[in-house]
Amino acid sequence: MFLKNAWYVACTPDELTDKPLGRQICGERMVFYRTTAGQIAALENFCPHRGAPLSLGRIEGDRLVCGYHGLKMGCDGKTAEMTGQRISGFPAIRTFPVEERYGFIWVWPGDADKADTSLIHHLEWADNPDWAYGGGLYHIKCDYRLMIDNLMDLTHETYVHASSIGQKEIDEAPPKTHKEGDQVITSRFMENIPAPPFWQMALRGNGLADDVPVDRWQICRFTAPSHVMIEVGVAHAGHGGYDAPAAVKASSIVVDFITPETETSIWYFWGMARNFNPQDESLTASIREGQGKIFAEDLDMLEQQQQNLLTWPDRPLLRLNIDAGGVHSRKVIERLIADENAA
Amino acid sequence: MFLKNAWYVACTPDELTDKPLGRQICGERMVFYRTTAGQIAALENFCPHRGAPLSLGRIEGDRLVCGYHGLKMGCDGKTAEMTGQRISGFPAIRTFPVEERYGFIWVWPGDADKADTSLIHHLEWADNPDWAYGGGLYHIKCDYRLMIDNLMDLTHETYVHASSIGQKEIDEAPPKTHKEGDQVITSRFMENIPAPPFWQMALRGNGLADDVPVDRWQICRFTAPSHVMIEVGVAHAGHGGYDAPAAVKASSIVVDFITPETETSIWYFWGMARNFNPQDESLTASIREGQGKIFAEDLDMLEQQQQNLLTWPDRPLLRLNIDAGGVHSRKVIERLIADENAA
Amino acid sequence: MFLKNAWYVACTPDELTDKPLGRQICGERMVFYRTTAGQIAALENFCPHRGAPLSLGRIEGDRLVCGYHGLKMGCDGKTAEMTGQRISGFPAIRTFPVEERYGFIWVWPGDADKADTSLIHHLEWADNPDWAYGGGLYHIKCDYRLMIDNLMDLTHETYVHASSIGQKEIDEAPPKTHKEGDQVITSRFMENIPAPPFWQMALRGNGLADDVPVDRWQICRFTAPSHVMIEVGVAHAGHGGYDAPAAVKASSIVVDFITPETETSIWYFWGMARNFNPQDESLTASIREGQGKIFAEDLDMLEQQQQNLLTWPDRPLLRLNIDAGGVHSRKVIERLIADENAA
Repeated sequence: MFLKNAWYVACTPDELTDKPLGRQICGERMVFYRTTAGQIAALENFCPHRGAPLSLGRIEGDRLVCGYHGLKMGCDGKTAEMTGQRISGFPAIRTFPVEERYGFIWVWPGDADKADTSLIHHLEWADNPDWAYGGGLYHIKCDYRLMIDNLMDLTHETYVHASSIGQKEIDEAPPKTHKEGDQVITSRFMENIPAPPFWQMALRGNGLADDVPVDRWQICRFTAPSHVMIEVGVAHAGHGGYDAPAAVKASSIVVDFITPETETSIWYFWGMARNFNPQDESLTASIREGQGKIFAEDLDMLEQQQQNLLTWPDRPLLRLNIDAGGVHSRKVIERLIADENAA
Repeated sequence: MFLKNAWYVACTPDELTDKPLGRQICGERMVFYRTTAGQIAALENFCPHRGAPLSLGRIEGDRLVCGYHGLKMGCDGKTAEMTGQRISGFPAIRTFPVEERYGFIWVWPGDADKADTSLIHHLEWADNPDWAYGGGLYHIKCDYRLMIDNLMDLTHETYVHASSIGQKEIDEAPPKTHKEGDQVITSRFMENIPAPPFWQMALRGNGLADDVPVDRWQICRFTAPSHVMIEVGVAHAGHGGYDAPAAVKASSIVVDFITPETETSIWYFWGMARNFNPQDESLTASIREGQGKIFAEDLDMLEQQQQNLLTWPDRPLLRLNIDAGGVHSRKVIERLIADENAA
Repeated sequence: MFLKNAWYVACTPDELTDKPLGRQICGERMVFYRTTAGQIAALENFCPHRGAPLSLGRIEGDRLVCGYHGLKMGCDGKTAEMTGQRISGFPAIRTFPVEERYGFIWVWPGDADKADTSLIHHLEWADNPDWAYGGGLYHIKCDYRLMIDNLMDLTHETYVHASSIGQKEIDEAPPKTHKEGDQVITSRFMENIPAPPFWQMALRGNGLADDVPVDRWQICRFTAPSHVMIEVGVAHAGHGGYDAPAAVKASSIVVDFITPETETSIWYFWGMARNFNPQDESLTASIREGQGKIFAEDLDMLEQQQQNLLTWPDRPLLRLNIDAGGVHSRKVIERLIADENAA
């Protein structure tokens, strides 16, 4: 159950080398490539000649040359040329609307005529020199909604990430969940607590004392189809917390683009955007390394949870206050899928 | 097809460390742990909150703390506590009767109210200082009944284990099979034969000459649901064989607890108990190493036999005199399963 | 969809060691062995006693001794002996007609009474001292017909094998396809072109200049059930090409026996027979190494093409002039299978 008429992150620019990239997204086998002129193309990964995967071919100008018998596929899904052949009757293959923006390649796996690039999730910080971003990609064998649940209930930090960002005070601070249109927001504020190791590192990275009490916040925002942006940070205690001046805090945005591959697997694009010391590349690298280790701790849990749910498909799960973010996000998804199917 | 109302070996005490142990038994996903007070608990491996596997959590006193969001599960299957939550309405999870006895952890995957610990397979030698025991665990992808067949027909030693315990004289001595209640007994006696390498080692381990003719015996006893104990040994020839005085023989009990994981996979707990030189730990280690190598020789055969039987599911197999032990054991199992289903 | 009443290459003589060989062919689990007297036997890989795979046993004279309980199977599929057993009532297992010829072991997976060894694909060069042969075996997860397509359309050399035997002139020379009875022949001739690296090596191997223009030819011959022999070669340009005298050319026969394992996997026996410098074993080794690398380039393409076709089973493929060889070969196969089913 995916929303098909939506923009998903397909890949990052560094994944598009001089070779095409094969990737399955929302059950669709796609191939992505950057033309010599720099445009992005997204096509079905299927050569109309004999069904070979175009991702094993090579890029030639704005065309993809099939690596089997040399059919030259245009980025419009129409065969452009094939040596010795009249190609006018060749069936076209499907193209997918695709757009490079904010440092990501976005793809629309649904009806092309509904693909409006103004619907791409806006990232205010992305093209702003006051901000820096670092991130990575994990492949996880779970339903994408389990990852939404994960990110909309950060209570799990206390248990899964005990040595880095977890602390008992998270557990003790009940989150609040509300909706703004189709956006679901879960937030949690903790006051006058010690900073856990990851945030001590971030405070030092911003030139701040790491051994004083802090105010800490987590504001998780779900937007369809499966994006979760989380404002996180700590400020030296008593300066206003989330609203404290930049000089006494370290804050950032955890960026999570969850792209379904199949019903039970995802491409998980994770990262962190920050607006302190944006020019410090070694800090960017440290944060990315730390975050990569932390997020890797979730993988085994998510995959085994998925196995349990496949074993007991009809067993009801609890919906506690801490689950409200995930529960409401799923409701939004369900309604949008129902709308899509009705249309 | 398993008997559910029966005691199976779930694990050995050394497998229960400070982490919980996830293991599937008779198709049931279970988690085992030892409380701080030393009790054993066996639960469904399913957190009632969001379905996470409890085996990824940690032990806290007599509770299991879910590694995802910190639900504290009691060893009674009832949620004991969850920070910030009222847990009174939380659904319980299933517990399984479990008992530590004779150096094994036993579990009852069926109806808890029928679990009578007096039904646990009695091991006379287990708590006796005159005896020593060593063993191990293999995971094998075959129906548990193929392993029962294997152990109730030791003719295979001649072929599978030719270099250790096999010898042509096994083949030449027809076994006799009889029943005592639901116990099936297959026995074979060989007189005035050379000792094969494993038994030469055992004779030396008991301070006896290894190059003289011996009398050899094998008495296999099947008991439900899937345990096979085998009295094996050699005595210097002409002293009475099985009944010879301890001073002229080396004898032991091969211990086989076969625990179904799924319809086509098992946990195979194997070992050997002996009543000579029980204090000699290096002898225990030698025997375990030898037995481990010998039993590993069966794995490929059993797994490929299983594949053959899945390919040809309706093809009849022979039931020779040497198969009588397995055939009668299967009949006992079938009748007990029929009784269980009728009840 | 296989033709069952046909001779397939099962294995090569060097695969038949002192151990039996288990191999699945056209969906049939078979075991092959060479008797002490040198005969080949092919049987179902199933011991009639308890279903163990006979391929885990050992050869004893002209019998196969089951590695589980020692049943001695004759090469006629009848149990010859089993210690302590009366074997007269044991069910026979199926035998398969098998023949060693031309350096290959051939098997007939269909009705034994239709197996006529005169139908074995004739290899003129096989027992001729003027010829040398080298080859190998690949296991590939694709429908055998995809490999026939591959070999009956060498256009792919330009793309898949660009650095060895590919060159744009292949693409530019349209092939011609015709039938001779049930044989399908696709041929392509190129004149006055540079020799690609593999053929430069072959020219040098024949003591010829490798830097002069050549005439090149490829004549692919499909015969049922799934054999493709390809005459390939180059001659110094202007001497008659395919018909040029031996002194100015290097030519050979690419030998492809494609044996289905299952519906979506094959045993691919590939090789090259040549009639120049047949005594030069290091040249044979060089050619085999070169050909092995070239043919390995096809594996990923074939396996991913298969995956694509499983994803889109009903999607039509093109049938261009370059595909005519494969298309006609498939028609022959389809008709023969229909005949077989009707009979």
